[in-house]
Amino acid sequence: MGKQRSNGGYDYDLLVIGCGPAGQRAAVQAAKLRKRAAVIDKREVVGGVCVNTGTIPSKSFKEAVLFLSGFRQRSIYGAGYRVKAEIEMADLTFRCHRIMQTEIEVIKAQLTRNHVDVIYGTAQFVDDHTVEVTSSDGVTNYTAERVLIASGAEPHRPSNIAFNGTSIFDSDDILTLQKLPRDLTVVGGGVIGTEYASMFAALGVHVTIVDARKRLLGFVDEEIIECLQYQLRGMGVTLRLGEEVKSCQGREDGQVITQLKSGKVIVSDCVLFSAGRQSATKNLGLEKLNIVPDERGRMSVNENFQTSVPHIYAAGDVIGFPALASTSGAQGRLAAAHMFGVQSRTSEVPLPYGIYSIPELSYVGLNEEELTKQEVPYETGVARYREIARGHILGDENGMLKVLFHRETRQVLGVHIIGESATELVHIGQAVIALKGGLEYLLDAVFNYPTLAECYKVAALEGYNKLRA
Amino acid sequence: MGKQRSNGGYDYDLLVIGCGPAGQRAAVQAAKLRKRAAVIDKREVVGGVCVNTGTIPSKSFKEAVLFLSGFRQRSIYGAGYRVKAEIEMADLTFRCHRIMQTEIEVIKAQLTRNHVDVIYGTAQFVDDHTVEVTSSDGVTNYTAERVLIASGAEPHRPSNIAFNGTSIFDSDDILTLQKLPRDLTVVGGGVIGTEYASMFAALGVHVTIVDARKRLLGFVDEEIIECLQYQLRGMGVTLRLGEEVKSCQGREDGQVITQLKSGKVIVSDCVLFSAGRQSATKNLGLEKLNIVPDERGRMSVNENFQTSVPHIYAAGDVIGFPALASTSGAQGRLAAAHMFGVQSRTSEVPLPYGIYSIPELSYVGLNEEELTKQEVPYETGVARYREIARGHILGDENGMLKVLFHRETRQVLGVHIIGESATELVHIGQAVIALKGGLEYLLDAVFNYPTLAECYKVAALEGYNKLRA
Repeated sequence: MGKQRSNGGYDYDLLVIGCGPAGQRAAVQAAKLRKRAAVIDKREVVGGVCVNTGTIPSKSFKEAVLFLSGFRQRSIYGAGYRVKAEIEMADLTFRCHRIMQTEIEVIKAQLTRNHVDVIYGTAQFVDDHTVEVTSSDGVTNYTAERVLIASGAEPHRPSNIAFNGTSIFDSDDILTLQKLPRDLTVVGGGVIGTEYASMFAALGVHVTIVDARKRLLGFVDEEIIECLQYQLRGMGVTLRLGEEVKSCQGREDGQVITQLKSGKVIVSDCVLFSAGRQSATKNLGLEKLNIVPDERGRMSVNENFQTSVPHIYAAGDVIGFPALASTSGAQGRLAAAHMFGVQSRTSEVPLPYGIYSIPELSYVGLNEEELTKQEVPYETGVARYREIARGHILGDENGMLKVLFHRETRQVLGVHIIGESATELVHIGQAVIALKGGLEYLLDAVFNYPTLAECYKVAALEGYNKLRA
Repeated sequence: MGKQRSNGGYDYDLLVIGCGPAGQRAAVQAAKLRKRAAVIDKREVVGGVCVNTGTIPSKSFKEAVLFLSGFRQRSIYGAGYRVKAEIEMADLTFRCHRIMQTEIEVIKAQLTRNHVDVIYGTAQFVDDHTVEVTSSDGVTNYTAERVLIASGAEPHRPSNIAFNGTSIFDSDDILTLQKLPRDLTVVGGGVIGTEYASMFAALGVHVTIVDARKRLLGFVDEEIIECLQYQLRGMGVTLRLGEEVKSCQGREDGQVITQLKSGKVIVSDCVLFSAGRQSATKNLGLEKLNIVPDERGRMSVNENFQTSVPHIYAAGDVIGFPALASTSGAQGRLAAAHMFGVQSRTSEVPLPYGIYSIPELSYVGLNEEELTKQEVPYETGVARYREIARGHILGDENGMLKVLFHRETRQVLGVHIIGESATELVHIGQAVIALKGGLEYLLDAVFNYPTLAECYKVAALEGYNKLRA
């Protein structure tokens, strides 16, 4: 080896496999605790799926769609309004690359500043303290006291779908589309499928979403999803729910034929297959450690993110739901804190969930179905964007914010938002839930005028009046 | 009189003079307490300055400026980028009228729903329980047990300024401009002056701001104002601070000559004079009640918004600072609650302040100067928009969020924001301050990614690291 061995004879205190949000945060947290940490990444760049093919490109794309399509201005300037008459894919992805570059620089700088080593190459366990890294430079073994697996996930690519990267895409290569299709079939109505479906619909592409479940985004409050589905249909989206795909094949003329099990056939220029992701655990050599991932490659961990081998941790997309950049980052940080015996406060702060569709969705706390199941006597307070000044100014007529609160204690139990800035606004509700402000807080607080945040007050008043009725 | 008299022989339990945010909220609050309430408004429409010439038109104008000038997109598409090559005033005010109409309908519907009478005409006190209303229909006296004066404020129009409504404007008529000027002199760097100056600058108008004080917006945190002034200068604004205006006159060729006391002369197409407002109390007949407003017409009230005559209250712009729609509304509600003996919780929730300039400013709690004066051992945590992903996606490179917290107790003492969505984001800090979440809350909470709200976490971490250093 010839390497200088620090603590306990290991090269590193922590070796992280994967440099997405979970891996970065874990490594930085370890470094801040004065531990020697390194991250291994198979890409030649840091950032993981989040920066390189997932979150950042899709959110940058969304912002370009909203702007260039004039989507936000349609209710004011008319439905035919567009900033640019003929929108090309290049117009839409132009800013993506720049934003990705900047993000990569920010992450690199953060890792360097904290003296975290970055090792490029493919990682495989040799034993439970040794990882072999293969790159164009050769093969090197690194040892570490603890290892975090944060290798992320990849699109699921079943064999009945003839992926070709030109007309049949997965979520990692959809933005390499050469030109905007006239029609697009999206298979899978999860987060990624719904986000892309709505963006292409906003551009005027005729989109069909196929999903085996009876509604999109099964984990989100039903009323919010009803509102989303209503708006998507208004944007020309066809929903084929409760339908399964039999096959998906390119035809000689370039069109794609999607066959459904019900016998229906959908012909479109393009298909985005986004039904599920597969955790990237296949080639890690986990069998040598007797760690057995599930059929989707997901690893199971305890509340401290430990696998069945206590000094090997896993966090981020590789462990499955919710698989969001924000939660993955938090998991990485908590895992590192646990490894090095730092008493990490068991946070009482509920997690926010954000779906960057058009319209945007976000929520925190429980939804109506969950509360009903738990037999909690809750009441709802609803504010519609069209009732408040800021909603008119922005031209969002369909947005809404719903506060769920306990009829007796008046504690806020959940906040569910659909519409402009939903992912930002939800954090006000998150603070009120976590800090137990209750309905009273929302009734008392003065909000800037005009803001969308006023929806909290309007919703609280609406809910409060129901209590007195 | 011939009118049916309800309680104590009066026509109304509450008569409100002025139908802006303070008046509306007071009347609705009284109605909800099952009191008979009426509002008198001298305009033929409800809404006050807020809806008709102030807040709503200026915020709608701002949104149109941001969109049509492509201001938000400049850091991404380049400084020369514009959505519309030749922007006309009509493009910018087009949406204002529609938004105003909608707001007026919303307010009317709310008053009607709550059975609040709306009386159009000019109000003057006959005695401390009787108000005479003069309209085109004649003169009618109304009596009430209690009266709220919420008559608002008007632009101050000193005699050395030759207002003409074509090239020399006040803040109420500036949006009647027929075409965009090449250059604009703004006299007064308060909220309204700064807001309009920045909007016209974003449109490419060469703006000069003159103010007798050494900086804009004296009540806002100094670092935030430094950042604002820096950005305004970058937009081509000339700041003439510490300078007083001697006179302002139109010249034969249509240009306006602004003479400063220092001898400087500014020649421009137009002038906006926005140095102070005058409370609208002159013709109310207050002398009959022995109520004496100050030199700016402002009325003084106690903590319950009572004037020196205990059953006559005043709220909103008419009592002076902060004179924001949000705070005026809250004052009206509290005044009505006090009148009718409802124990209104003395709210511990600090007020947010929002300035809708470009860039936008907002804050809650105390600023650095105030804390220094009070000898509070505080520390700062700063996040710049350019450090976070959402900042790049939006293209706001200059935004920043500053959290001020107590070095020992770690309570959050103030949050100060400049940049996109500042007026929305501030409410997260408001909840944390009010509900005593402290720095720990911001360190613990997971925020949606990518959002501007992440600035809170980045700022908290930055501040926390200073504590350990």
